[in-house]
Amino acid sequence: MKQRILQKQLQGLFKQATFGIEKEGQRVTSSGHIAKTLHPKNFGDRAYHPYIQTDFAESQLELITATTQSETDALRYLSAIHEVTLRQLPEDEYIWPLSMPMLLPHETDILEAQLNETDTAYREYLSKKYGKYKQMVSGIHFNMGFSTAFLEQLKQDTETLSDIQNNVYMTVARRFMRYQWVLVYLLGASSLVDEKYYDHHEHLNKPVKSIRASRYGYVNSDDIQVSFDSLTDYVTSLRQLVDTKKLIAEKEFYSSVRFRGASSVVEFLEKGIQYVEYRLFDLNPFAPYGILEKDARFIHLFIMLMLWLEESDENIMLGKEKSEKTALSHPLDLPLYIEEGQWLFEQFLDMAQYCQFSQKDIDIICEKQHQLLYPEETVGGKLWMLYEEKGDMLEVGLSLAKQYKKEAVEKPFGLSAFSNMELSTQAFMADAIQQGIHVELLDEHDQFLKLTYRNHDEYVKNGNMTSKDSYISPLIMENKVVTKKVLEKAGFKVPHSIQCQTVDEAMEQFPLVSGKPIVIKPKSTNYGLGITIFQNGTRDKEDFKQAVTIALKEDKEIMIEDFIAGTEYRFFVIDGKTKAVLLRVPANVIGDGLHSIKELVDMKNQSILRGDGKTTPLKQIELSDIEQLQLKEQGFTVNTVLNQGEIAYLRANSNISTGGDSIDMTDEVDSSYKDIAQNITKAMFARVCGVDLIIPDIKVPASSNSNYGIIEANFNPMMMMHIFPAKGQSRRLTTDVLKMLFTEKDDWYE
Amino acid sequence: MKQRILQKQLQGLFKQATFGIEKEGQRVTSSGHIAKTLHPKNFGDRAYHPYIQTDFAESQLELITATTQSETDALRYLSAIHEVTLRQLPEDEYIWPLSMPMLLPHETDILEAQLNETDTAYREYLSKKYGKYKQMVSGIHFNMGFSTAFLEQLKQDTETLSDIQNNVYMTVARRFMRYQWVLVYLLGASSLVDEKYYDHHEHLNKPVKSIRASRYGYVNSDDIQVSFDSLTDYVTSLRQLVDTKKLIAEKEFYSSVRFRGASSVVEFLEKGIQYVEYRLFDLNPFAPYGILEKDARFIHLFIMLMLWLEESDENIMLGKEKSEKTALSHPLDLPLYIEEGQWLFEQFLDMAQYCQFSQKDIDIICEKQHQLLYPEETVGGKLWMLYEEKGDMLEVGLSLAKQYKKEAVEKPFGLSAFSNMELSTQAFMADAIQQGIHVELLDEHDQFLKLTYRNHDEYVKNGNMTSKDSYISPLIMENKVVTKKVLEKAGFKVPHSIQCQTVDEAMEQFPLVSGKPIVIKPKSTNYGLGITIFQNGTRDKEDFKQAVTIALKEDKEIMIEDFIAGTEYRFFVIDGKTKAVLLRVPANVIGDGLHSIKELVDMKNQSILRGDGKTTPLKQIELSDIEQLQLKEQGFTVNTVLNQGEIAYLRANSNISTGGDSIDMTDEVDSSYKDIAQNITKAMFARVCGVDLIIPDIKVPASSNSNYGIIEANFNPMMMMHIFPAKGQSRRLTTDVLKMLFTEKDDWYE
Repeated sequence: MKQRILQKQLQGLFKQATFGIEKEGQRVTSSGHIAKTLHPKNFGDRAYHPYIQTDFAESQLELITATTQSETDALRYLSAIHEVTLRQLPEDEYIWPLSMPMLLPHETDILEAQLNETDTAYREYLSKKYGKYKQMVSGIHFNMGFSTAFLEQLKQDTETLSDIQNNVYMTVARRFMRYQWVLVYLLGASSLVDEKYYDHHEHLNKPVKSIRASRYGYVNSDDIQVSFDSLTDYVTSLRQLVDTKKLIAEKEFYSSVRFRGASSVVEFLEKGIQYVEYRLFDLNPFAPYGILEKDARFIHLFIMLMLWLEESDENIMLGKEKSEKTALSHPLDLPLYIEEGQWLFEQFLDMAQYCQFSQKDIDIICEKQHQLLYPEETVGGKLWMLYEEKGDMLEVGLSLAKQYKKEAVEKPFGLSAFSNMELSTQAFMADAIQQGIHVELLDEHDQFLKLTYRNHDEYVKNGNMTSKDSYISPLIMENKVVTKKVLEKAGFKVPHSIQCQTVDEAMEQFPLVSGKPIVIKPKSTNYGLGITIFQNGTRDKEDFKQAVTIALKEDKEIMIEDFIAGTEYRFFVIDGKTKAVLLRVPANVIGDGLHSIKELVDMKNQSILRGDGKTTPLKQIELSDIEQLQLKEQGFTVNTVLNQGEIAYLRANSNISTGGDSIDMTDEVDSSYKDIAQNITKAMFARVCGVDLIIPDIKVPASSNSNYGIIEANFNPMMMMHIFPAKGQSRRLTTDVLKMLFTEKDDWYE
Repeated sequence: MKQRILQKQLQGLFKQATFGIEKEGQRVTSSGHIAKTLHPKNFGDRAYHPYIQTDFAESQLELITATTQSETDALRYLSAIHEVTLRQLPEDEYIWPLSMPMLLPHETDILEAQLNETDTAYREYLSKKYGKYKQMVSGIHFNMGFSTAFLEQLKQDTETLSDIQNNVYMTVARRFMRYQWVLVYLLGASSLVDEKYYDHHEHLNKPVKSIRASRYGYVNSDDIQVSFDSLTDYVTSLRQLVDTKKLIAEKEFYSSVRFRGASSVVEFLEKGIQYVEYRLFDLNPFAPYGILEKDARFIHLFIMLMLWLEESDENIMLGKEKSEKTALSHPLDLPLYIEEGQWLFEQFLDMAQYCQFSQKDIDIICEKQHQLLYPEETVGGKLWMLYEEKGDMLEVGLSLAKQYKKEAVEKPFGLSAFSNMELSTQAFMADAIQQGIHVELLDEHDQFLKLTYRNHDEYVKNGNMTSKDSYISPLIMENKVVTKKVLEKAGFKVPHSIQCQTVDEAMEQFPLVSGKPIVIKPKSTNYGLGITIFQNGTRDKEDFKQAVTIALKEDKEIMIEDFIAGTEYRFFVIDGKTKAVLLRVPANVIGDGLHSIKELVDMKNQSILRGDGKTTPLKQIELSDIEQLQLKEQGFTVNTVLNQGEIAYLRANSNISTGGDSIDMTDEVDSSYKDIAQNITKAMFARVCGVDLIIPDIKVPASSNSNYGIIEANFNPMMMMHIFPAKGQSRRLTTDVLKMLFTEKDDWYE
């Protein structure tokens, strides 16, 4: 096809493709035994789950990415799915990072995946025919399809789209099988296996590059032969094997290449092969999630090369023989067919030049080319050297498994592959992945997601802006004057407020407010600047005037508002229910009689929750002028050693963004206030709302003489401070938003 | 109360009050006869209508403002209600601007207002007792209550709120009746009346200041005496008159002062008088809506004065006598009690000084004080002088009535009292007022309205942002990438689009688009700058590169998009229905073989619809460099005289904001496209949406091979260009939005 691509100038489109990765992996205990626990309930219905399923055994996770437009995005999904999975596993469980298990149970102790009857029957058939051990092997399935735009441009006028699809993918399949030994050489990494694996089978008694890619892996018996000469031959020969019951189903035909996009191969004749699944790849133990991005890219380029080759042998039998021999060579052996390998890489660089590959792609190709002469740098080679160093493959695997779980669990609040997005959107995506709701990123920069559960689509922006809220709701909330009027009309107690633009105007109001508890503040408040509170009222006209003057320095309009004594709480309401109540406390440290304030701040800042406040739920406490001034007002310096239990505030304001603590109070607050927050949300036409209430005593129920005050109602309220509070119980609000969106789903897990 | 106000420093609060104005007015024909037509159906159910009702006669409009916090706002409502009313009257009808009719029909030809049975029975009773003519008089009822904050501060510790309300309003009432002659002198303006008015009654045979305020007006018989000594006396004496059937109901007691805020006067004893209705005022014929703002302000200040006076006579009988004599004095007579008048104005200025009145208020007081010596400057005096000049009071009234209607009708697209707001919000308010839906301005600057129909509240911002739309809907629409994905998913044909940031990136796409009709444009388009269209595709790489380079000069990201040939139409969808379809045509003039392009532009700009595009629905066409360049490209200059029917375009772009024409095509477009617009709106989760479609031929139905293209979907779409198109039928979209909001209302009129 090289000439056609060049003639039609399709080099750009040629690089476009869609991807999807499936990755198997055994759950194991800390000792390396296959986990005997059931597939965690937390992942929901695995029969439907788009991301987290089980393969043959109950212990064998099958993690599946979304279909993406780049291998990078497929790997990002794979990373996210792994992080979600690892965080939900029992403490003593890990995901085994090698294709081959090193500690198999007795065969009868292997539990087939607990699915419906049909699926279970199929697994029992396989167990009988191949033995259960063969099924316990794990690997990567790499799915790739060229872009439709490319195929449409590539086809001749006389061809249909399905013609070109079948033509392209049959060609690629034959050549892939012919040259796959190169991939086995470079990426094969299953050298050893638990001895039990060979029970009832021929014994392999030497380390090899890939047990899994060899006939010691899971292969069909020798009489299963399917022709790849043409699609018709392929379909006819495969159907005949099924019809004659040599195979129980098409899917029992195991091959390194499987055509995809139809429920039966017969359909391909009409609709064309949609994409291809390449099943050759061992887990890369050095990749936390089984495959490195650069290897995924290399596989993609290798598949492109299969189409690009001008003069290609398509002798599949020869290819299989070379693949088998390579698989069974020692991990540190040089390639058996080094000249063919060199020739292939020359073609690779020819393609790279014609298609203007990026330097990054060229580097990836050159690194692999280099490995043709340095087997110790291949994945299998490196694994073998590590094994020789440690002396125990079980230990090698366990140590990596534990390291990967630790990395996934230690920062539980985000998805590292999506750290470019807001933390709340990351948490939201994590929940969707866990709960089995399909997530598509419509616009990463704009935090815009599309969620799909079965046939139901929902769109979500910034974690909680959805179709469920009314358009007028944020418009009301962002206008403080309108908010007050709406709430007053709905019968709520809103602090009475007068707006003034001049000192004279304000002074006219003095008699009205004299002696009453009031707060004087700029209309747009900014970190508490310009605010004066007369908690017990003032009867002094000069004090009042001064407060007005101070406030007017900060804004051209000020508010003289009734002051309601008490503490401010944030009520988070979703779908008619108060799901979380939070107290925000100004940045502070509590003394231990030993450390200075500076040291206490450093210690507090060690918390994994604290950081820049964007990639972490909480902010680190600073020790700038403003904090030191605040300490000074309390009679402290940064060097003061506080007594045991003595508290020092580093800030007057309680914002999380200036190092404040978030304390969950959901179970402490009297339910009457939760009702009020719910009713306020309703009055605002909102389904998701953050309501700020001032409450003197949360244990005393709200009374008809209104012993509380409403500060404001917020749309798109922050969620992270509730999900990861500094103190108190986590409230998984992102899950509550999902529940609001998909009321029909009945298998929610927390 | 002066001392108490000063002691408690309540001067500021003293000025705060709530207001409401009721204004009666007869519908008359162009000849000045009382209109025989029924109350226009367009105003909906007058029994409920908050703004437009009828008084005694079917012809007698009673226009009622909302309750407002300033007399200015009450007058704004009065202006708006008048404009709405006048625009809905039949062509030959006007609102008579004088209190007294000058051309009465035979008494039996006067039709009582067609209301329900109870109301009709009451009107028949009044007709029998007083004669119908007495009921045909019109005036202003001025409602005012001091602010609750003021009253609460004013009251002594031993008093309740209703104590102080009753105390204050009884005092004000007695003093008002004692000194009301001053208002009759200054504002009385009913000198003459049709002779028929005196049939069966004593004949007044000289011109007077105010027939209406005299015993020749509508007054109770002499035996109807109600005590104002105390509230208890008042209630007792009034109830007794009703119980002894001397009055059929409390409302038959006519007085210049009526207490308000209860369904029966008995309630006042418990809950207190809420506010007071002052019914003394003749229509001011020099005010388009019956009362001038400065006079309303003066009445307000006068009522304040009644409370302020330290030493006041409260002899009501004396007051009534003085009022009667003043009313019956000649319009140009000096006051009969000039010394008392002077004393009152001294007290006025005393109050002004103590309470730091604005210069504007002081000017208003001084102007009235001046009129004590210059009766020809009072309203009645001026009217009399105009009458003497014209020689015919009927003509005087008709000429003013016609002038006021002309002013209200000639600019039908806004409400002049609310011209500070967006035109679409003005149109929306006008519709609400007409349809009998209560409108409250929550935030004028923010175009935020609250609407109430019976007990149902709705909030509206910018004319069509409501609770009916989903929050996610505008979020999707403002993100073009997300919009495309949502529409594609919903099965719509969206032009395929590739985004590029560099020339190299774009060049990679060339083979893909080569030969196809495409448009290359900056991602953010700005008046068509940087756009190149290859309508028939290009196979020339250099042309393509140049177009890319041009587009990249305008934005850092460009779009290479499939070009769909055809014309762009705006579909306005409300609540599932396409309510309007609009074609926008670039600024243009059509030749007549006589005038130059410059002259044609001037003529076109004469249209009342064209102006700055903010206070008018359309924009004037300019003749700046850009328009002249556009003419040049067509081989014209501003001095070219076009042939009959020849068209010259002044702009390439069709924006209304650059002088484009809006042409209604709602009835011309095939319904299949309306369905598409409706379905797009639904896919966007929207109830109000402006959908831009490219259609090659609006008569050819949309086909499955998609002979149309979607440009974009807009939230908060413009309405004025549909309501007042340059050509074609007006589509009253504001009413459609109201209908969407209040589905329970069943008396809609257009």
